[in-house]
Amino acid sequence: MTGPEMHDLVRRLYPLCRSITGDGVRRTLEILAESVPLDVHEVPTGTEVLDWTVPKEWNIRDAYVKDAAGRRVIDFAESNLHVVGYSTPVSAVMSLAELRPHLHTLPDQPALTPYRTAYYAETWGFCLAADTLAALPEGDYEVRIDSTLAEGHLTYAEHVVPGRVADEVLISCHVCHPSLANDNLAGVAVAVALARRLARAEPWHTYRFLFAPGTIGAITWLARNRERVDRIRHGLVLACAGDAGPLTYKRSRRGDAAVDRAAAHVLRASGRPHTVNDFSPYGYDERQFCSPGFDLPVGSLTRTPYAGYPEYHTSADDPGLVRPEALADTLEACWEIVQVLEGDRRYLNLSPYGEPQLGRRGLYGSLGGRSDTEQAQMAMLWVLNLSDGEHGLLDVAERAGLPFPVVAEAARALQGAGLLKERAR
Amino acid sequence: MTGPEMHDLVRRLYPLCRSITGDGVRRTLEILAESVPLDVHEVPTGTEVLDWTVPKEWNIRDAYVKDAAGRRVIDFAESNLHVVGYSTPVSAVMSLAELRPHLHTLPDQPALTPYRTAYYAETWGFCLAADTLAALPEGDYEVRIDSTLAEGHLTYAEHVVPGRVADEVLISCHVCHPSLANDNLAGVAVAVALARRLARAEPWHTYRFLFAPGTIGAITWLARNRERVDRIRHGLVLACAGDAGPLTYKRSRRGDAAVDRAAAHVLRASGRPHTVNDFSPYGYDERQFCSPGFDLPVGSLTRTPYAGYPEYHTSADDPGLVRPEALADTLEACWEIVQVLEGDRRYLNLSPYGEPQLGRRGLYGSLGGRSDTEQAQMAMLWVLNLSDGEHGLLDVAERAGLPFPVVAEAARALQGAGLLKERAR
Amino acid sequence: MTGPEMHDLVRRLYPLCRSITGDGVRRTLEILAESVPLDVHEVPTGTEVLDWTVPKEWNIRDAYVKDAAGRRVIDFAESNLHVVGYSTPVSAVMSLAELRPHLHTLPDQPALTPYRTAYYAETWGFCLAADTLAALPEGDYEVRIDSTLAEGHLTYAEHVVPGRVADEVLISCHVCHPSLANDNLAGVAVAVALARRLARAEPWHTYRFLFAPGTIGAITWLARNRERVDRIRHGLVLACAGDAGPLTYKRSRRGDAAVDRAAAHVLRASGRPHTVNDFSPYGYDERQFCSPGFDLPVGSLTRTPYAGYPEYHTSADDPGLVRPEALADTLEACWEIVQVLEGDRRYLNLSPYGEPQLGRRGLYGSLGGRSDTEQAQMAMLWVLNLSDGEHGLLDVAERAGLPFPVVAEAARALQGAGLLKERAR
Repeated sequence: MTGPEMHDLVRRLYPLCRSITGDGVRRTLEILAESVPLDVHEVPTGTEVLDWTVPKEWNIRDAYVKDAAGRRVIDFAESNLHVVGYSTPVSAVMSLAELRPHLHTLPDQPALTPYRTAYYAETWGFCLAADTLAALPEGDYEVRIDSTLAEGHLTYAEHVVPGRVADEVLISCHVCHPSLANDNLAGVAVAVALARRLARAEPWHTYRFLFAPGTIGAITWLARNRERVDRIRHGLVLACAGDAGPLTYKRSRRGDAAVDRAAAHVLRASGRPHTVNDFSPYGYDERQFCSPGFDLPVGSLTRTPYAGYPEYHTSADDPGLVRPEALADTLEACWEIVQVLEGDRRYLNLSPYGEPQLGRRGLYGSLGGRSDTEQAQMAMLWVLNLSDGEHGLLDVAERAGLPFPVVAEAARALQGAGLLKERAR
Repeated sequence: MTGPEMHDLVRRLYPLCRSITGDGVRRTLEILAESVPLDVHEVPTGTEVLDWTVPKEWNIRDAYVKDAAGRRVIDFAESNLHVVGYSTPVSAVMSLAELRPHLHTLPDQPALTPYRTAYYAETWGFCLAADTLAALPEGDYEVRIDSTLAEGHLTYAEHVVPGRVADEVLISCHVCHPSLANDNLAGVAVAVALARRLARAEPWHTYRFLFAPGTIGAITWLARNRERVDRIRHGLVLACAGDAGPLTYKRSRRGDAAVDRAAAHVLRASGRPHTVNDFSPYGYDERQFCSPGFDLPVGSLTRTPYAGYPEYHTSADDPGLVRPEALADTLEACWEIVQVLEGDRRYLNLSPYGEPQLGRRGLYGSLGGRSDTEQAQMAMLWVLNLSDGEHGLLDVAERAGLPFPVVAEAARALQGAGLLKERAR
Repeated sequence: MTGPEMHDLVRRLYPLCRSITGDGVRRTLEILAESVPLDVHEVPTGTEVLDWTVPKEWNIRDAYVKDAAGRRVIDFAESNLHVVGYSTPVSAVMSLAELRPHLHTLPDQPALTPYRTAYYAETWGFCLAADTLAALPEGDYEVRIDSTLAEGHLTYAEHVVPGRVADEVLISCHVCHPSLANDNLAGVAVAVALARRLARAEPWHTYRFLFAPGTIGAITWLARNRERVDRIRHGLVLACAGDAGPLTYKRSRRGDAAVDRAAAHVLRASGRPHTVNDFSPYGYDERQFCSPGFDLPVGSLTRTPYAGYPEYHTSADDPGLVRPEALADTLEACWEIVQVLEGDRRYLNLSPYGEPQLGRRGLYGSLGGRSDTEQAQMAMLWVLNLSDGEHGLLDVAERAGLPFPVVAEAARALQGAGLLKERAR
């Protein structure tokens, strides 16, 4: 999938009213299933999941506030952000003074509608621009929220790209935000594109993609897969993947997991402007994967990080904030990280005493016509020098300051010449 | 004790002629005993202490140099700095030329009188301003030092604030300097104030305060407590605690002792301008406590460090150099460091799989109205995330970049909610 | 040997046509043997050495290209750089067009002749200035290379300065370059001077100097000494030792070998501008000594490093590029590094409880009249503090930030006073 194709997917998913449960998530997963086959899981309300309980399912059909003239001054049909997520049903006439405690605005960004939810408190509310609120006259308003909060299910989906081994790479993204584009339809679109690209690559690892609501979805998945999480060798939480900012990698709790090193190497070696941050127990679902009982090697890749841009959790996080070229760049970075995880192996130099004579084996000659000869030759010397059984190719790439693919290609050439033997993984 | 109260104590102690032995130290300890009960120890001359021997006791009543007109041109009664410490008695008339080898000045600070001692060489001398010396006419002078250097005792004192455990925190300060205010009456005053504050706090550790002459006093104490020093878990040498400069912490020889980490954290987290220096075997009595045979976890807290200010060891180190607000700030830093030492414990997250649902337990709600909600919430998430049995609260504070008290309060809240269990210390 | 004496040696060796085999190397070693006794080794063509085979021996008597008028337009007699090393014999008349593929120039440095070799490809060629080539008219040329490439020997030499122990320090330099002065006659001259200075010093370690052709020479030596290399405790490859640039130390593959720490300390403590680089598997014969099978603690000392100056491998690398004072400075740095390797021992403080009373032992007094008293006193305190059996004198020098000789002298003084005991090495 190209950047524009990912952007098309973001735009198509944007109008749906997603939440942590309900038909918006189901419809979202149906659309994703057109691109990648999905295993959809439905977990009943009341199911105990780790320290939590699956909540009631929430669905909404319509909602509005009408003025005395019968005009919808706040209208769910115009943007699903206008209703506080998980609002209970309401149908009443009330004065603006009575209504006001249920209205949420952003005084510092008066033209924007905020995104608000109330998952675990049974209440209701509307969100609107502070400018709109300021223009509302006193008087009575008709207030209606046509929603249901009832026994039902929490819905999430998995997509698996099988590998040669059962060891897994987990790619996770949250699918619970309504009309917010960068957070997180962009992450969803990149995940789908990465899954499609991996499916053609016959990877070594098995790749498990998780599309689940934030927090409670990850917790539900962890609760139901507790016996299997030790298969996860590496993982990435994808979020805010499409804004114009530079890439940001947030390390796993371990801090030195292979995915941490791979991501840092890829971002540095590529010359992209980027940031690498230490883990903190705040942000997206890495909070759950990196809780101390699991402590999985899962980092997080975003562009501008969590809550770091002014449009965050407002109506301005719309498809216009998401750039096709940024989606493509995030996908490419994911791909490069995956390539490191796939290719990072240990080799044993079979001729470790002195340098082997590369010229005699055509390993200089075979490279003579290429413009990157010098880099390729340095990569061979580094691979030979460090392939003592203690260092893998990522170690080589880091120490040599060479891009991982150049190092991996050097290892292939040396292995082809009988100078290297792969260590059992 | 407030800053002004500590400053009053400095001013009261300032005129006494202290040395490494003698009545000046005894009188100093009597005054301190008005504020905190003291155990005063008298160790006889000739006692072998580690590699050293307790020297003769020195006392002085009067000393002067009179000119031909009988005027005291150098006068001990005006400032005890005018006599070299441990000067032997002298009573003679001599020419300025004969006298000159016994006169000490500071050519680069001609208006100031230096501080000089000759503890282990039986000699005598006077100190005076270079300007004063330059104005002395040639001719005969009457020279008199009415001192005694004789068998006696070395005097030091201890004050103990008992704790819940026998593990000790050692707070040490030297009491051997005559009329020098910052070095070290300021340190003495802060130690007294800290002892009084601790006495009201029912601390966990036992706090041992040592008021002893520099070098030989610490060595004497170490010699007499050799079998007990393994009780010392943490320690601080207090010196130069009242000048206007920023705080300076000097690490223990170990470099990563808990007190080293606690002091660095407190200084950094407080936003104070400050310096943290590595250990060196020079300075105050940390030299003795950190000698390789003992290697105690004892750092040193000063404002401007040892020999680092122009007034150091001159008549300009007078009570005017010591600021009440600086004394109060040093005391506060000590207190904050002590709070870390007291409160640094390891907890076990009892709900380590995923995040526990804090909202259900009122741990978000209980914080809702507070202006520091975000910091308190982050502290709870960090404590939960790192309470895996490997990390203590200071580890959490360091990694989270949060002030220790905020972290400690989060731990208390989580423990109250049954989410944390304290590990045995 | 002084800088000018080393420079004389460079100038004397400069005209000889060295290669990886042949009489040029033999004649070079004969000249070196006038200064230091040498063990010369002759290894027959065809001998298998590690992954390599000793090649045929190459010798050359004359070579030229004559124009139609019989003038030598390219002349080996003028500079041996004009012939590609290991050129096979040729005697022919050919057009400039036919000749051109055998001519090598430096288009970016048109006035300079490049240095080229073809050790393992049987071919021939000439090197010349691009300006000279541009001025050659079309037409026929007489081309002659009077060389032999035949069964023979590879020649290298060793010089050993015996020490008190069999543990060895290896000093290696390549002797295969023809008329190139900095690379590496400068290194050869410094090695000879260092050997002569060491011979007078009765060193602790045994010093083995290796004068061998690059790559194949080091490989041959390693192959023939495989059972003995574990005697090598430290080593230095000397190259490019005489240009005007600052000193550059390149760490061994281990990165923290004693020689790595010694060299870094010497360069830093001396205040010289300098660079310390991490190991890379490219450069001089450290590539072989640091191959993973051997992994010897051998670093490399140069001034401007490998390939780092514009005259590198051109006719401009002539004796004028080499400065007598730079040779002397490199020798001095080597000497200082050697002094650290010789003197880095562990001592045990025999009075580790508190500071021993230095004044009583005359250890302050003995230093009183010296201008470096403070440094000497600090060095004694540091040596006492760190001599706990875990730290050697280089550790002390590094941590104290004091020059190694000052620390070593302090240790001698303390040992003399009975305060230190040397640990068995």
